[in-house]
This record gives sequence, C-alpha cells and structure tokens, in this order.
Amino acid sequence: MSSRIGNKITLQIFGESHQAAIGAVLDGLPAGEAIDEEALSALMARRAAKSDGTTTARKESDSVQILSGVRNGFTTGAPLALTIANADVRSADYQPTLPRPSHADYPAFMRYGKHWDYRGGGQFSGRLTAAMTAAGGICLQILQRKGVTVAAQVLSIGAVSGKAFDALCPTERELNAVNDAAFPASDTVVAEQMLLQIKNAAAEGDSVGGVIETCAIGLPAGLGEPLFGGVESRLSAALYGIPAVKAVSFGDGFALSSMKGSEANDAYEMKEAAVVTTTNHNGGILGGLTTGMPLRMYLAMKPTPSIAKEQQTVDMETGKNTALCIKGRHDPCVAVRAVPAVRAMTAFVLLDLMSERGLL
Amino acid sequence: MSSRIGNKITLQIFGESHQAAIGAVLDGLPAGEAIDEEALSALMARRAAKSDGTTTARKESDSVQILSGVRNGFTTGAPLALTIANADVRSADYQPTLPRPSHADYPAFMRYGKHWDYRGGGQFSGRLTAAMTAAGGICLQILQRKGVTVAAQVLSIGAVSGKAFDALCPTERELNAVNDAAFPASDTVVAEQMLLQIKNAAAEGDSVGGVIETCAIGLPAGLGEPLFGGVESRLSAALYGIPAVKAVSFGDGFALSSMKGSEANDAYEMKEAAVVTTTNHNGGILGGLTTGMPLRMYLAMKPTPSIAKEQQTVDMETGKNTALCIKGRHDPCVAVRAVPAVRAMTAFVLLDLMSERGLL
Amino acid sequence: MSSRIGNKITLQIFGESHQAAIGAVLDGLPAGEAIDEEALSALMARRAAKSDGTTTARKESDSVQILSGVRNGFTTGAPLALTIANADVRSADYQPTLPRPSHADYPAFMRYGKHWDYRGGGQFSGRLTAAMTAAGGICLQILQRKGVTVAAQVLSIGAVSGKAFDALCPTERELNAVNDAAFPASDTVVAEQMLLQIKNAAAEGDSVGGVIETCAIGLPAGLGEPLFGGVESRLSAALYGIPAVKAVSFGDGFALSSMKGSEANDAYEMKEAAVVTTTNHNGGILGGLTTGMPLRMYLAMKPTPSIAKEQQTVDMETGKNTALCIKGRHDPCVAVRAVPAVRAMTAFVLLDLMSERGLL
Amino acid sequence: MSSRIGNKITLQIFGESHQAAIGAVLDGLPAGEAIDEEALSALMARRAAKSDGTTTARKESDSVQILSGVRNGFTTGAPLALTIANADVRSADYQPTLPRPSHADYPAFMRYGKHWDYRGGGQFSGRLTAAMTAAGGICLQILQRKGVTVAAQVLSIGAVSGKAFDALCPTERELNAVNDAAFPASDTVVAEQMLLQIKNAAAEGDSVGGVIETCAIGLPAGLGEPLFGGVESRLSAALYGIPAVKAVSFGDGFALSSMKGSEANDAYEMKEAAVVTTTNHNGGILGGLTTGMPLRMYLAMKPTPSIAKEQQTVDMETGKNTALCIKGRHDPCVAVRAVPAVRAMTAFVLLDLMSERGLL
Repeated sequence: MSSRIGNKITLQIFGESHQAAIGAVLDGLPAGEAIDEEALSALMARRAAKSDGTTTARKESDSVQILSGVRNGFTTGAPLALTIANADVRSADYQPTLPRPSHADYPAFMRYGKHWDYRGGGQFSGRLTAAMTAAGGICLQILQRKGVTVAAQVLSIGAVSGKAFDALCPTERELNAVNDAAFPASDTVVAEQMLLQIKNAAAEGDSVGGVIETCAIGLPAGLGEPLFGGVESRLSAALYGIPAVKAVSFGDGFALSSMKGSEANDAYEMKEAAVVTTTNHNGGILGGLTTGMPLRMYLAMKPTPSIAKEQQTVDMETGKNTALCIKGRHDPCVAVRAVPAVRAMTAFVLLDLMSERGLL
Repeated sequence: MSSRIGNKITLQIFGESHQAAIGAVLDGLPAGEAIDEEALSALMARRAAKSDGTTTARKESDSVQILSGVRNGFTTGAPLALTIANADVRSADYQPTLPRPSHADYPAFMRYGKHWDYRGGGQFSGRLTAAMTAAGGICLQILQRKGVTVAAQVLSIGAVSGKAFDALCPTERELNAVNDAAFPASDTVVAEQMLLQIKNAAAEGDSVGGVIETCAIGLPAGLGEPLFGGVESRLSAALYGIPAVKAVSFGDGFALSSMKGSEANDAYEMKEAAVVTTTNHNGGILGGLTTGMPLRMYLAMKPTPSIAKEQQTVDMETGKNTALCIKGRHDPCVAVRAVPAVRAMTAFVLLDLMSERGLL
Repeated sequence: MSSRIGNKITLQIFGESHQAAIGAVLDGLPAGEAIDEEALSALMARRAAKSDGTTTARKESDSVQILSGVRNGFTTGAPLALTIANADVRSADYQPTLPRPSHADYPAFMRYGKHWDYRGGGQFSGRLTAAMTAAGGICLQILQRKGVTVAAQVLSIGAVSGKAFDALCPTERELNAVNDAAFPASDTVVAEQMLLQIKNAAAEGDSVGGVIETCAIGLPAGLGEPLFGGVESRLSAALYGIPAVKAVSFGDGFALSSMKGSEANDAYEMKEAAVVTTTNHNGGILGGLTTGMPLRMYLAMKPTPSIAKEQQTVDMETGKNTALCIKGRHDPCVAVRAVPAVRAMTAFVLLDLMSERGLL
Repeated sequence: MSSRIGNKITLQIFGESHQAAIGAVLDGLPAGEAIDEEALSALMARRAAKSDGTTTARKESDSVQILSGVRNGFTTGAPLALTIANADVRSADYQPTLPRPSHADYPAFMRYGKHWDYRGGGQFSGRLTAAMTAAGGICLQILQRKGVTVAAQVLSIGAVSGKAFDALCPTERELNAVNDAAFPASDTVVAEQMLLQIKNAAAEGDSVGGVIETCAIGLPAGLGEPLFGGVESRLSAALYGIPAVKAVSFGDGFALSSMKGSEANDAYEMKEAAVVTTTNHNGGILGGLTTGMPLRMYLAMKPTPSIAKEQQTVDMETGKNTALCIKGRHDPCVAVRAVPAVRAMTAFVLLDLMSERGLL
C-alpha cells in the first residue's frame, strides 16, 4: 500500500523533501550478495544535480548510509535499510496555501489536510527518487551477476529525438556505454541538442518534457505471472511511482494500435539453439511473461511543473483566484535526472520477478 | 500475486479458456449494496461476440452465476463469488507444440511446462475478460450510486480515429450515451469507418489494433496513495492484466513529453465554489492522487495475434522452424470487445480506492 | 484481507452456509502436480457428518467440483478453483434478530448490518471448513510427494486426554495410522471415552470442547521468515481462521512459561550425519524458522456454541433481554470434524512456505 | 512478507542486533495525529535494561529518532520512519559456528548461510522489540485519543502467578496503573515474588519463563474480518513476531477445551443501553470480530535461551558434538521487558483494524 512495492522482495520508501532524511528498506534480498558501495555512489552521482544550468541548484551529497542488512560487504538476508540525509533545504520558498499547478499540492491538501508537509512537495517530491535509485542500485548489482543488464536513456527531449536501443540484439557493451555516458543518450550529437532544449527552456523560465527508454537483456523466458501479475503490470505500477511519469508503454506501444496483426506479430525462429523472435514489436513480453527477447519500455515524462513564469492558482485559505510566482530551485527537465531512478526501479522489479521464480 | 488484485476490495480471477468455467471472487465489498443482475447481463452482452463478422464465431452465453455474497439482491459483505460456464469450445483447433506468434504460448510453456493448458490460450485467453467484466460490472453499479460514472470507448481502430471525450466537463449523459451505443464510439459516422477497418482486416485474414479511451467523472479529489500506490500505478497494473494492452497513458500522455511546462500545466481557478483546473492535460491525476477533474486514460490494444495468414514459428518438440496456419475462431480486433472489460476493471480499481478512503 | 491467506501460494475462501455453494481458489500452485480426486473425496468424507449421534444431522455430500487449474489430472499452473454445493439447508431454523451466544451473530450484525446472511452463521459458519479441507487437501497431496507428512488428532475432549504424538521421531506410518483411523486419536481405548464425552454432552443438550494436536515431519530446516513471517505467525493466522479455535501453541506452549532455560532448551547433537535436537520443547520452530525437528502445534477448540439448553440473549430489534432456544442441527463437539480442516490448513501453510524457498 | 505486517497501516521492521541501527517504518498513519515524543521515551524506558540484576547489563539509550512523517509534532500522512542506534555491542561474545540451543542460530544458518549476521542473534534478536515498541508506542498514543486503552502485564513468572485483569469491566484507571507500575503486575506483593524468581534463576546461571496478559478496552464491536482476517489471526501473527512467544490464546484459551457449551457461552444482556455479555470466556472476540467486551489475550514466553550453564551443541564447521558456554549479556527472563513490546504490537494491530473500518 502506498509507498511500498514488491512481492518476494519488497521496497518500502520513506521520507519527505524537507525533513531529516529519506530512505528505503529492501526486504527479502538473498543473503550473500556482494554490495559495492562505490558503484552505488557512482549511480547516485548520475542522479545528482549538475552545475551546468540544466538542473536545480539545490546541492545534495546524496551519500547513502546502510543501517542494516549488510555485513563485511555482503547482504545478510535481513532487511537492508538505507538513509540519505536531506540538506540545503529552503523551506521558506514554499507556500502552504497556494497549490502549484500540476504539482501534487492540491490533491495532497485534500487528502491529508493542513498537516501534510507541503515543503518541497513533501512525500511527493522528486527527491524521493534518490531513495529509489539507491535501493534499485543494489538490485542492479545483483542482477548484473545473474547476467541481466538494464539500461535507460533519454530518447527525446521536447521535439528532439535520439536513437533508440537496438530492439533485437543490443549488446551489454552498447547498453553500458549509455549507462556510463556523461549524458544518458545513445547519440552524443543529439545529446547536445537535447541539452540545448533544456537550457533554452530554463532561459525562458520554462521547462520541458521527455521520453525515457529502458532496455533489459539477459532475462530468461517465463518471468512474470498471468493477468495482474504480468511484467507490464508490475513495471508500470513501479514506474508510475516516479513523479512526472504520465505514460508507460512496451514494445511498439501506441504504434501497435494502428498496425495489422501481420505487421505486429513477432515470428519465432531457432537461432543458436535458442528460440528467438525475428522482430520485437512486443518488447520482450507476451501474456505478461518475458519471452527472453530484449525488454523494451518507454516512459513519457511531463515537463517539470515548477516554472518561473507566473501562473494562476487558488488560495486555499481565502478561496480566491490568485497569481503565483514559484520561487524554489528546480530542474528545467526532470527526464534527465530520472534516468538512473528508472533504471534502478526497473532493476528492482526484475529482481523481484527473478526471486519469485527461484532464480536468485 | 498473479491473478489477484486490489487492496481493501480484492479481485481474484480464475479459469482457463477450455475448462469447466471461469469466474471471479470479489472480497471486501460493503454489505447492503443492491446488485442488479439484469444490468449485469446487459453489460456482459456488450462484451459478447456479434454475428456481423467483426468478432469470433465462438458462441458463449456468458450467463453469470453468483454463488455467494448476495442475498435478496443485496450484498451481504461476504466474498462475492461468480462463475461463467465455458461453452462451444473446439480444443482440437489448438496445437500444444507450435507457439502462435505474439500469443503467450511460448513463454507460458517455458514458465509452466507441458502441463499448462494451451487450449485457447488457457489462463492467458481473452476469455478471462468475461470474468473481469462481470466482477467489475458489480463495482460499476456501486460506483454509480456514489455519483461516479465510468465510460470507455474505442478512440481509434487502425488509422481511423474518433472523437475523444470532453477533457474538462463531459456530462454523465454524454458518457452513458457512449456506454450504451451499439458500437462504443462517440461519433456514429466514425464508428462505421472503424467497423469497416475491422471487416477489411478480417477479409484479408488479418487483424487490426486500436486505442481505448476511458473517462471517469464524479471522483472526489485526493483518492490514491503516494508513489507506487498512486492511481496511475493501480489502474495501469489492473489494465495491463487485460490481454493485448501494450500501452497505458494518462491525460495527454506521450504528448506531454514534447510540451513546455507553461503549456502542460493545468492552472487552478474557482468555479461554482469548487477548485477546478482550466485545462486537463494531467488527466485528473497529480502526484498519483485524483484532483476531482475527469480522469482520462488511454490504452493501446495490439492487433489480435491470431490471424489466418501463414506465420513462422518453431516446433517446441523438434526444435525446428516451421510454418503455422492458425485455425480457431478469433476476433479480428480485440479492441472493441475489450471496452466493457476496460470500463469494468477501471470501476474495480476506483471502487477499491474509494473504499480505502472510507467513502463506501 | 479477510477470507484470503498466503504469500506465494494464496487461498481465497468464499461462500456462506445457506447460499448456492462454498468454494476456494488456490493461486500459485506449481504446474504438473498430480491431483488424486479420490484421495480428496476420502479426506472430505472424514470431515463429513456421521450418523452415530456425535455430529450434526445436516447431510452434505461435500462433493468437490474443480472448475479450473487441473487438466488430465495434473495442475496446469493456473488458479485452481473448486466449489462445493450447499444442500439440506433449513434456513427457517435461524432468527435474524436474536444473536446466539458465543456465535459471530452479534458482532457480524454490528459489522455488516441487516444484510449479512445470518442463516447458519453465514460466512462465519463451520461449514466453510469444507472449502478449507478441499483446498488444503490438494496441498497435502503435493507435500506428501515432497516427503512431508502432516497429521492431526484429537488430543483431548472435555476432561479426557489421549496420547500425544511422539515429539522427537514419530514415523510416517504412525502418523498416517491416526490420519486414517475411524476416530482421529492415537489411542483407540481413549477414543471410545472421547466419543462417550460427546454423546453425553449431546444427551444433555450441551456441547463440549477439545484440543487438537498437529504434527508435521519431513520439513527441511530454515523454512519461514523472520519476525511476523515466522512459521508460528503464519500457522496461527491460518488456524485462527477455523471457527472455534481459541488458542494456538507450539511445542510445550504455555508449559514453557513455568520452565527454566536449562529445562526448556533443546540441545543439539549429530545423528546419522544430521543436526538434531535431543528434546523438542520448541516444537520444531526457533526464531520462527523450522529446525527440521517435528513441528508440534496445539489448538484449543471451544465447545460448540449452539446448544439445546435455553440461553439469555438480546433482541436486536426491540433492545430487550430475551430467552433463546436454538433449533438448528449442530455438532455437539466441533473438535472432531475440525481435524481434517486443521490438517489441511496446516498443509496449505507449509506448502506456501516450501514454495517461497523454491522447494516445489 | 517477513519483517512487515499490517493491512491499511503497515509496519516494516529492520535492523540487526550488532549493526548501525534498528528501526521501523509505519506507513498509512492518518495525518494530523499528535506525537508526544516524551511519552514515547517513557515507554521505551520501560523496555530498557535495569541495573537491579534482573536484566541484561547491555546499556542501550534506545533514543528514538524520527526521520520522516512528523512535522511540528503532528503526523503528516507520509510514512513515519524511525531509527534507534545500536550501542554497547560486544560482538566478540558470539561464535558463528556454534548454534546456541533454542536460539534461531541453527535454522538461520540453514536459511541464510554463512553471511547471516549471527552476532547477538542478528535480525532474530530480542533487540528488535525496541523498534516494535517505538512504532507501536506511536499507535498507542493515537488509540488512546480514540478511547481505546491497551494494557499488558506479567501474569506469571515460573511458578508464581499474579492477578489477572478484570475480564468484564476493567477500568482505564486500573489498566493504566499497571502500565505505569515499576514492575508490570497488578499485585505489588506478587511482583516482588516474581522478581525473586528472576533473581534466583540468574543466580543459578539459569533463566525463567512467564505469561503476559494483555487487555484492551474501548474497542467498538465489529472490528476484524472473517476467517484469516479475524482479530485473533492478526494479533497472533503479530505477537508471534516477538521472540520467545510460544503460545497465544484468547479469553479462557485452553481452558475452553474442557468446558461445556453451557459453561463457556457468554450470554447477552442490555446494560445502560448497550449490548454486553454477562461473562467473557471468549475474550471479547467472536467469529474473529470484536464484540465490544474487553479483549483478553495471553502469551507464553519461554525462558531466555541464553543461560550461563554449559550446554550441548554441534560445531557447524566440523560437524562434531561440542559443549558450549554462552558468554554475552542476557536477560534472565524476557517476559518482563517484552511487556511494552506486547502492548505496543497489540496497539499496532488494533489501530490497523480501526483504520480498516474507517474509524481514524
């Protein structure tokens, strides 16, 4: 319920943007898995704010403190709890009575009343993705040892689109190259154009949306459960938990709706003693189960709701229409910094699915 | 896990295409809710096959038998169990060793081995949506009394697109007109064109995909939970449980990814003593919580995988490539008959959300 | 929630005493498990009423109909749904406004209001144990093939106590002899005395309680999860689901409270290359995990609340004190017929625990 | 799963005895509830070790740090995370290869392998009850404002038994007197004898068990769900999560098994416009639902497994029988310090049940 997800491995997120700390508890991890804290820090750094004007100016060290579940660098099998301290908060930037358009403020006030922590968006803040990244980052490390690689990239920013991952046989090397790139996009030229879109939006006191593509290879066929326990159900439930995600699709997604069956069907063939498909319109999932082909997922990220331009809102105290100028410090495009969180949460779900099939 | 979903009200689906019966158990319904079995039959009839060549020729009466949880026409508060008998099966049409492209056959075989019931797709069959429609149909009736209207329509078939529901203030009457229309689309002229697309695909031994739009009005602001318990997470998890769904989006969905914040943000204003937004790009959901504006959801349905045209597959017994001609009887477009199931499953999730907030 | 239990394998019970049918859905069973319907019927027969005056006169054939999840005698991996028709009901025996002392009537009325199905106790009826027995009976068959034997017996009726199972090394043969005995007690002489207690109570228009002992052998060490996921937590949650259970203990139970550590501790030793304990005061569970020693559980069953003697109650309509003479047909001792249900529900929990550890 | 419990309000426990910290996440608390940190500290102090020789010599300040979910002294509706630092550990006292009799060591090693944190019993340590006490202590404060009082006391230590709470109408004042007493027992004379039992056991290098009685008043009738969701199922699942609990009973518990129905049934009568029972053999629960009468629960606590006397065990490395002398610092009787944890976990379950019924 609410801030928890998972079946055999569960993830409980906690924290609010302007309180002492945020964190996560991973329960159900197998014992004896090596945890590389340096690699985890490197992943956290990919989510951190930059000083190039494309992200918020809020500085967070985002150092992950593991409180339990790891001894001498190996998981013990006990719940792994981690915290990340909140720092550099400017709570005065936030107004309790003026809901910011397209933020959670208004429904959160209706849901929780005046005691909800509106500062920085409270528990609805994008800040929570730091805890997701840390917890999922641990899952990524375990998955990697099982031969599963998960990659995520920015596929488009505003009107600028980049190159998608290979749908049929992306290599681990290609995927990790994007995972490690300064800007998470396959094509460095397009990456520059994407950054420009973000800087331009920032310069206009505006923000811009984007699409994140995720790919996972090395998965066995048959992961997942029927109906509501399908891989698509579980990934979408997890990824809609990342603020600003407004669409989740698999394979050719909406494009499939205008295709014929003869175009959309993925034929089978034998290849090096394995059953593969000759196309991958279904994104590696059929009937909710993995097919063993690359898993392809696409997320639409809306533009950051916080913009410098004046907006119209309602004063919840007086019930009057009023103009609002958002102060605070914000990313002009959440799509970029969300990439490690998307990758991490995908890894969490996949690890849980592997665990359910007894593959850990 | 698997065939079950829900928090305070839970739905357990069971059944396979060619066994005795399919069914559902709804646990957690409030006591004292009137159940109109005639209205339920009418909804089931909307999902039933037609004799106009646009659907499968398999005849199922789909009569719903309620085994428990209802006394004298009112819910008792006990789990409501219902069954729907399977009839008119032609199991001989199915081949255990030749996985049909883009069906669940191959991963299901890898998951369950030779004992899985491959006939008609077994538990992965679209037939299961009859049980979803019946269970969700009961939820629809309860929601209606709480002032919530849920509508679903075919928004596009192949390249033919219809008229979307009003994003800001669709009326209950408009929505129910579509719910009751012979073909579930707002525009009757376009409906004809859509039917033509389907007939043409059928004539070519092919199939075609479509988009389903869902709209819910009358919801209070503040339903849902943060992060993974958000309304988008829960609806998408439920709706990806419907076979052939490959994308789920809310509000402007993927279009948001190419918008500026100043375009995408929904400003607030007072209207008749209520806080509303002047646009509804976010589809009535912010931070995973309902805003009280119309909920807008879009699903991409892939074309029916079963087509008459010859396809390539692999014989799982011999490991050889082989051609496959699917016999069986199939819908040339699953999008149309899925509409009542989409509406019903949406109602299930919304009722569960209402229940969690103590609104039943 | 409510009528559902289990983690990786889940059990959803449904039904009310006087409606069309009761039943169960087992979700998460492995595929390819043989189901012996005759053995299942034999188990159901052990729960059935007898014609010797020690049970209710209500006649139920309790024939189990499997609707899904089994093909050609093997599980398919799909949810296994089963129903048992209700028959020979005498609804007129029940009064909606006069709660029977020590039955669920009064709190159920407070919980569900006037629409709850009070006839025969509705969803709180001991009748529901037929569905538990059927579902758990399937689990028993699977467990047996994994080398796990579960036995249950009546350890005492009123003041008459029988012989407990061997705490250290009961054999499969000894356990199954009790499982198959006409009266489920180790000692046939004591069994006669127990039956006499029941007949005497019945003759007085009264009822009597009892203790049920359960033993499971063949379990590997290390089943279970820490804290609330421990074997004791999970078994007690399941078994308190059986009406009339008022105490659940493990190993020496309450007797441990008056022991010294030096008396209660179970020392380890090697025996035939295995680690065993030299005593079994802890009943095969330490820290919530199985130790590999026999699992020992004890349940207190209260006397059947329905007795022929006049009792005092309150008329819920008038709010007046009134006398009540219960008609209906009832078991003078629920402990005996509960034995197969206890055994079956224990098997369900153990199978779920095995499944979680990847042992199926 | 495992270290998590609850339906609408969930509790995730984490931590191991000798790592950085233990803690808890309470998810689903209502917003706007005042949290009195001083009262919480006072409860924690009741669980703390004493310097009178009746408890371990390990010194833990057990100061609770709240990381999220509380702002200005009121809950925000976000997950409430808290941590308690571990201090004064002496890890060298523990041997990884010599399982201590009647501790979780052996099955934990079989379950998790060599990476499990055996130091101080790791995640199976009684130390985890500090996190339960803190989390449940918050629930106690909320319950109190709803008119529900939960009390727990030591009913017996070894052979010394005290006075039970009044089964029919204990007052809030009486209950809280015991909650606040220096030693948690109704009768101060007996309390002295109990302490003597503990000191004697300690002096002999031994330990002793006890029984804890719990009483809750002010509960409305009708809390709970049928079958496995009953109050007994849920309380027992929670309380078996407390190390050393080996029996959980309600009302007259095992004594009911030797009673007649005419003795055990609780007759109804009107009293001050309310329906009450004239006796309370069922402990305030019928059919798994609360009746509104005082809830009576009894737990058997086994003697502390850690004793100074030499014991027999097996060296897991060599597979040889060997003698073991436990060093470490341990409570000679866990029953006393468990009282606040029992009270707190009971409050957690009751608050969750209230929340499910929309009563918060």
